[in-house]
Amino acid sequence: MNYKMLRYVIGQILKVEAALMGLPLLVSLYYRDSGLLPILSVMLPLGFFGYILTAVKPKNQVIYAREGFVIVALAWLLMSAFGALPFVISGYIPNFIDALFETVSGFTTTGSTILTDIEALPKGLLFWRSFTHWIGGMGVLVFALAILPGGSAQSMHIMRAEVPGPTVGKLVAKTQLTARILYGIYMFLTALEIVLLKLTGMDWFDCVVNAFATAGTGGFSVLNAGIGGYNNVWAEMVITVFMLIFSINFNLFYMLLMKQFSAVLKNTEVKVFLGIYIIAALLITGNIVSMYNSFAEAFRYAGFTAASIISSTGFGTADYTLWPGFSQTILIMLMFCGACAGSTGGGLKVARVIILCKSAVSEVRRQLNPRLVSTVKLEGQLVDREQIRTQGAFFVWYMLILLISTLVLSIDNFGFEVSFSAAVTCINNIGPGLGKIGPYGNFSEFSWFSKLVLTADMLIGRLEIFPILVFFMPRTWKKA
Amino acid sequence: MNYKMLRYVIGQILKVEAALMGLPLLVSLYYRDSGLLPILSVMLPLGFFGYILTAVKPKNQVIYAREGFVIVALAWLLMSAFGALPFVISGYIPNFIDALFETVSGFTTTGSTILTDIEALPKGLLFWRSFTHWIGGMGVLVFALAILPGGSAQSMHIMRAEVPGPTVGKLVAKTQLTARILYGIYMFLTALEIVLLKLTGMDWFDCVVNAFATAGTGGFSVLNAGIGGYNNVWAEMVITVFMLIFSINFNLFYMLLMKQFSAVLKNTEVKVFLGIYIIAALLITGNIVSMYNSFAEAFRYAGFTAASIISSTGFGTADYTLWPGFSQTILIMLMFCGACAGSTGGGLKVARVIILCKSAVSEVRRQLNPRLVSTVKLEGQLVDREQIRTQGAFFVWYMLILLISTLVLSIDNFGFEVSFSAAVTCINNIGPGLGKIGPYGNFSEFSWFSKLVLTADMLIGRLEIFPILVFFMPRTWKKA
Repeated sequence: MNYKMLRYVIGQILKVEAALMGLPLLVSLYYRDSGLLPILSVMLPLGFFGYILTAVKPKNQVIYAREGFVIVALAWLLMSAFGALPFVISGYIPNFIDALFETVSGFTTTGSTILTDIEALPKGLLFWRSFTHWIGGMGVLVFALAILPGGSAQSMHIMRAEVPGPTVGKLVAKTQLTARILYGIYMFLTALEIVLLKLTGMDWFDCVVNAFATAGTGGFSVLNAGIGGYNNVWAEMVITVFMLIFSINFNLFYMLLMKQFSAVLKNTEVKVFLGIYIIAALLITGNIVSMYNSFAEAFRYAGFTAASIISSTGFGTADYTLWPGFSQTILIMLMFCGACAGSTGGGLKVARVIILCKSAVSEVRRQLNPRLVSTVKLEGQLVDREQIRTQGAFFVWYMLILLISTLVLSIDNFGFEVSFSAAVTCINNIGPGLGKIGPYGNFSEFSWFSKLVLTADMLIGRLEIFPILVFFMPRTWKKA
Repeated sequence: MNYKMLRYVIGQILKVEAALMGLPLLVSLYYRDSGLLPILSVMLPLGFFGYILTAVKPKNQVIYAREGFVIVALAWLLMSAFGALPFVISGYIPNFIDALFETVSGFTTTGSTILTDIEALPKGLLFWRSFTHWIGGMGVLVFALAILPGGSAQSMHIMRAEVPGPTVGKLVAKTQLTARILYGIYMFLTALEIVLLKLTGMDWFDCVVNAFATAGTGGFSVLNAGIGGYNNVWAEMVITVFMLIFSINFNLFYMLLMKQFSAVLKNTEVKVFLGIYIIAALLITGNIVSMYNSFAEAFRYAGFTAASIISSTGFGTADYTLWPGFSQTILIMLMFCGACAGSTGGGLKVARVIILCKSAVSEVRRQLNPRLVSTVKLEGQLVDREQIRTQGAFFVWYMLILLISTLVLSIDNFGFEVSFSAAVTCINNIGPGLGKIGPYGNFSEFSWFSKLVLTADMLIGRLEIFPILVFFMPRTWKKA
C-alpha cells in the first residue's frame, strides 16, 4: 500500500470539496440566509486540512488496483462525513447520523431523504444538498483528475473504481483528457437543462438545483411536494427527457461529437434500456389509466415515474404507492435494472444485466453439450471469461448484501415491503421505496442503526461493491 | 432426440404411478370412503396407457444429457397431470388447475395448498395427497431406476437431472444400485419416523401421512390446524428431528452405513446447515420470547418453524405471520438457503450457497491481483470452473424467474409481501409464505393464471431450472 500517495490524493479530494463548497457559500451570501456561517465553518478547516495533507508531494506516485479501490472508498467516506457537517452545525439536521445519511444519499445520487420539511432549510444548504448529486454523479475523483495537473498514468485505476458499470473504456489515450471530456459533456448537458427549465417558467434557483439532481440522477427536490409541486407539465417533460439522457453511457455522447453516428445507433445497451423504459411506461399507463381522467394524463405520470426510477433519479410527480401492486412491482424491477453503464445512473446497469442474462443462456446450451465453448458478446465484442466470472460474483455479493440489509432493517418492524424496498432503493441509488418510504414519504422513522445500514448500502451501491469490500479486507492492508 | 426411448421411459413412469396409486386405493377400501372410485378410474386407464407406451422396447437405448433433461421434465408434467385427476373426478377439487396446483405442490414437496377445508377430503385422497410428497421427494425416476430391471449405463443422466443439488455423486459404480441404496435408506428412515410418531400416541393413519410429508420435506397436513392441531409436543420433537434428518445429503447416511464416520464429521455442508439452523432458531426465539410464557415455549415454536422452513417442509405449529418482522425476514432468508444437496429438501441448497459465496470471495481477491488463479474448494475437493459458471448461471435464472413471477403475481394485487413470498416459497418448494398465505392461510384466492405461474415455479424449483429450460428450448428438439 502506497500510504503517501493515499494521503496525498485524499488531501487533494478534500481541497476540491472545500473549493466546491464555495458555490453554496455564494448562494447563501446572495440570499443572505443562515447557511452562510455553517458552510464557511466547515469549508475553511477542510481546505486547511487538505492543504496540510498535500503539502509534501510523494516521490513514488505509483498506484495499483489496490490503491485505486482504497483511495476511492476512503475519499467517499471522508467527503461524506465532512459534507454532512454544515447540516449539523446549522442545526437543521442536528443528528450527525441523519446528516450523514442525507449527504451520502446526495453524493451517491440516491436521493432518499430523512427530512420531513425540506422547505424549512435555507437556500444555501438546499443548494449544497442538490450540488452533492452533481458532484457524486460523475464522480469527485474523476473531477479531480480532470482539473488537477499531473495525473499519473496509473490514475486509470481510480477512474475504473469510481465510474459505474462493468467496464470502463477510455475515450482517448490519456486518462486526464478522458476525464475532461466526460466533465465537459456533463457540464454542457447540465447547462442545457437549466436553460430549458428556465424556458418553462421555473425560478433560476429551482432550475439549477433540479438540473443538478437530474444530471446526477439523484432526485433530491427542494419542494416538499417534489417535482409535482411545480404542477408544470413542460418542466416535467424536460426533466423526463434529461433523466433518460443522463442514464445513457457518456461514451455515446463523445461518439456523437466524433460523428460516429452508426456506432451510436448500433449500441445494444441503449436500445435495450430504451426498450425496457417504453414497455414499462406503457404497462404502468395501462394499469393506472382508470385512476386518471385520460390516457394522456396516466401516461404523463407513468412516463415520468418510469424514467425517474429506471434512471435511478427518484423524482416524484405522483404517489405511486397508491397505484396497483402490478405497477409498483414493475417499478421495483426497474430499480434492479437501473441505467446504462458509464452514465451517472445507478442499479445493476443494463450492460451488466445483459452480460448476466447472455451468460445464463449460454450455460443452458452447455448443459446439452459440455464440450461447447460458450461465448458472450456485447457491442460486437467478446466478453472474456474473467469478466463474466467477476459479474457473477458481483451479482452474488449484491443479492447477499440486499438480503442481509433487509434482515437488519426488519428489526424496525415496518413490514417486509418497507424493509425490502428500502434496501433495494438504497443499494441501487434510486431514492424512494414502497409504503411509508414512497415518493411522498421519507426515511426519518428508521432507527439510527437502520440509517447507518442504508448509508452503507448507498455507498456500496454507488461504488459497485468491490472498492468497499477491498477497503475492509484485512489482506489489503498487509505488506506485499 | 431418441424419441423411442423417450416414449418408453415415460410409459414406464406412468405404469409406476398407476402402481403407486394402489396404496391410496387400499386405504380407500379400508376406510370405505368416496376416494375409491375416483382413484380406480384414473389408475386403470393410466396403467393401460403406460402398458401401450412400453409394449415395444426400443433397440437403441442410448440416452444423452438432452434426453435425460427432457425425460425428467416430461415425466414430471405428465405425472402431475394424471395425479391431479382423482381430485377432479371426486369433485373435492373440481377445478383442474386447482387440482394440478395441489398435485404439483405434492410431487415437488412444496406443500402449498389451495384447500380451505382439508379435513373434508376422504382418507384415500388425503393419503394420495401426502403420498405424492414421498414419491416426489427422492424422485419417481430414481424410484423406477431402482425397481425396474435393466437400467442402462446412461441412466445417470436421468438421475443427475432429478436429484437436487449442484453435483450428484454415485455411491457405487452402478447407477441402479445407487438408486436402490438411496431408496432403501429413504424407506428405513420413513418407517422409523412412523414408529416413533406412533409412540407419541398418534393415529396410525396420521403417523403414515405425516411421515410421508416429513420424508419428502413436503409439508401437507391432514388437519386444518396443521401439526399444531395435535398439540403433541413429543410428536413435534420427532418431526423436528426428522425434518432435519431428511435435509441432509443421503450420501452421508450411506457413509454411516459404511462406517466412514470421520468423513461424515468433516462434512462442511452439514456443519454449515446445522449452524444456520441453530443460529436462526435462537435468533427467532429471542425475538418472540415476549409473546410466549417462557423461553422454552418460544423455543418450541421457533425450533420447529426454523426446521420446517430450512428443510423446505413447511409444517406449521405456530402462525409466524403474527411474529415480528425480524423473525419473518429470517424465515424468508432460510427459504432461499434451503437444505443440503442430495436430500429431499428444496431451496438453493447449502452446497450451492457455499460455492456461490466462496467464488464471490475469491473474485474480490482477484480484483487486487488479476493474475491470481482463484480456486474454490468444497469437501476438500476443487470445484472446477465450469461448475462455478454453471452455478452462477443457475443463480441468475433463479432470481430472474423469481422476479418475473412476482411481477405476474402482483396482478392479483394482494400486496408486494404476498406476491414476493408466494414466488419465493413456491420456487424453493417450501409451502407457506407471508401474509394471507402464511402457515394457517392458503393459496385459494389467487387467480387461475397466478396458480399456473406458481405451479410452474414449483416444478422449475424442484427440477432445478435446467431440465425445464432445456425442455422449452427449440434447439433441444432439432435433429442433430
